[in-house]
Amino acid sequence: MNEFELIQSYFNWSIKDPSIALGIGDDAALFSLKDGQQLVTTTDTLSESVHFFKDALPSDIAYKSLVVNLSDIAAMGASAKYFTLALTLPKINHDWIEEFSKSLRQLSEYHKISLIGGDTTKGPLNITITMMGVVETSRALLRSGAGTGDGVYVSGTIGDAALCLKKLRDGLVPSKGELLKLNRPTPRLELGMGLKGVASSCIDISDGLEQDLSHILMASDVGAVIDVKNFPLSESVLSYIKNNGDWSIPLCGGDDYELCFTVPESNKKALKILSQSCNMDITKIGHIDDSRVLKIDGYDGARNSYQHF
Amino acid sequence: MNEFELIQSYFNWSIKDPSIALGIGDDAALFSLKDGQQLVTTTDTLSESVHFFKDALPSDIAYKSLVVNLSDIAAMGASAKYFTLALTLPKINHDWIEEFSKSLRQLSEYHKISLIGGDTTKGPLNITITMMGVVETSRALLRSGAGTGDGVYVSGTIGDAALCLKKLRDGLVPSKGELLKLNRPTPRLELGMGLKGVASSCIDISDGLEQDLSHILMASDVGAVIDVKNFPLSESVLSYIKNNGDWSIPLCGGDDYELCFTVPESNKKALKILSQSCNMDITKIGHIDDSRVLKIDGYDGARNSYQHF
Repeated sequence: MNEFELIQSYFNWSIKDPSIALGIGDDAALFSLKDGQQLVTTTDTLSESVHFFKDALPSDIAYKSLVVNLSDIAAMGASAKYFTLALTLPKINHDWIEEFSKSLRQLSEYHKISLIGGDTTKGPLNITITMMGVVETSRALLRSGAGTGDGVYVSGTIGDAALCLKKLRDGLVPSKGELLKLNRPTPRLELGMGLKGVASSCIDISDGLEQDLSHILMASDVGAVIDVKNFPLSESVLSYIKNNGDWSIPLCGGDDYELCFTVPESNKKALKILSQSCNMDITKIGHIDDSRVLKIDGYDGARNSYQHF
Repeated sequence: MNEFELIQSYFNWSIKDPSIALGIGDDAALFSLKDGQQLVTTTDTLSESVHFFKDALPSDIAYKSLVVNLSDIAAMGASAKYFTLALTLPKINHDWIEEFSKSLRQLSEYHKISLIGGDTTKGPLNITITMMGVVETSRALLRSGAGTGDGVYVSGTIGDAALCLKKLRDGLVPSKGELLKLNRPTPRLELGMGLKGVASSCIDISDGLEQDLSHILMASDVGAVIDVKNFPLSESVLSYIKNNGDWSIPLCGGDDYELCFTVPESNKKALKILSQSCNMDITKIGHIDDSRVLKIDGYDGARNSYQHF
């Protein structure tokens, strides 16, 4: 099977977006932006044995490859639109590719995003997706806008993905719910879009709250105090911490893909309304100050968020 | 060294393009298009042992990772602007990364393109670049416009990269000039832009003329007759063929990154002027017909252009 047949068989589903002038099948794809829109672009790679286990399901790998990118678009307050897929595979395994492409298609159709191009190459399994979205000019949520006095917030609960990963590594059997948190995180696109004009800065929690919040602090040239007692935790994580006292799971564990953001006092009411309209739990975990350091009340352990190397 | 330090040290050179609102360092990059522009996007991966030898120079790998993408932009008649880099590395080797990033920066500065984002991950060496460019709305060169009677043309000479690769595989020592053809191909951006309004279809020769021209034929629903006697060949390739009679090198060999395109009779004069203004040799190798097959006069060997799997 050549590349052309591979793409035709598995990755050339129909595109309904009128902004796309040319999708898969030429040297490049072509699309337009509307007046007043900026293009938002991000890229993320998933590599075997680093981001997923050797026996991971192709459907889970496809889902997560897309979600980690969607989550970056969410953290910008943007709307996801188009993506390219660079797929490096050790060999053609039709069952594997079929399951992978089916899952990719399902999630893209759910989020109304279009696969517009890509490349397939032979080599150790590696999936790089580049996601493009749009946002109204100058309205994107950046990391750099946090100001002294702003509250620090997180969406959903944190630490679930890290706890599940820990259980798997320890040879324990996580519950179905716990596995879903690791393998099928929800990108917070609706929340991200709603946070424009409400939040002063935003990031998604991919490497661990402690590290990701630190990126906001550095980009905004501020500090923060957060308190582990305020962390929004699921039953599983709560019970784990009760037994082990190990706060590093929600603090330094990555892969939750919740949003961490800062909101000025004056926008607290708007945030409450947004939380209700998105039906999304949002929790204040601390506040921004001018110290330029991250103080974590209730924790003096290692700050060992995920390191890429 | 964490990802942040890695990017700051090696990949965060200054950006001078005013259309970029936000480059490296946030969840995503932001840029604008001008009125009447379409975005052109393409992605290509280079994977160790498939696209380059294990001992390849990092400067050559960086160069080629960028050029294969620039060549796709050239084949669309577009102007290259922005790119993201997804770099999967087995480990942090500072000398390697420094040489890689220096070469990447040199070539991007030469072509006035900006690195606007990326991802670094641990794993077997794999480089995926997604390149974005712009083109005037509805003016891009597609594969699908070739019509009966159009001439089939190629730029430069063909087969040089394939011959060099063959020599390396056979344990022979190619000349410096031959190595340059394989490791440092020139993306035909100026020619591509000039071909708008002149050519009826265009593709870059990455997998082999025979296969790449076939993509034009399929997309345009036409056929073609080409003659190997017309092929533009360098001294090296000519002398190889004289000795071996092996036309598969220029016909099926990839990696030349020349452009293959079709031009209606009525635009022949414009093409000649373009060839002079670009200072670029352009050779007619055949013509389009309505046969829906590719007839190759002077060749009855295997059609074994590069297969991705």
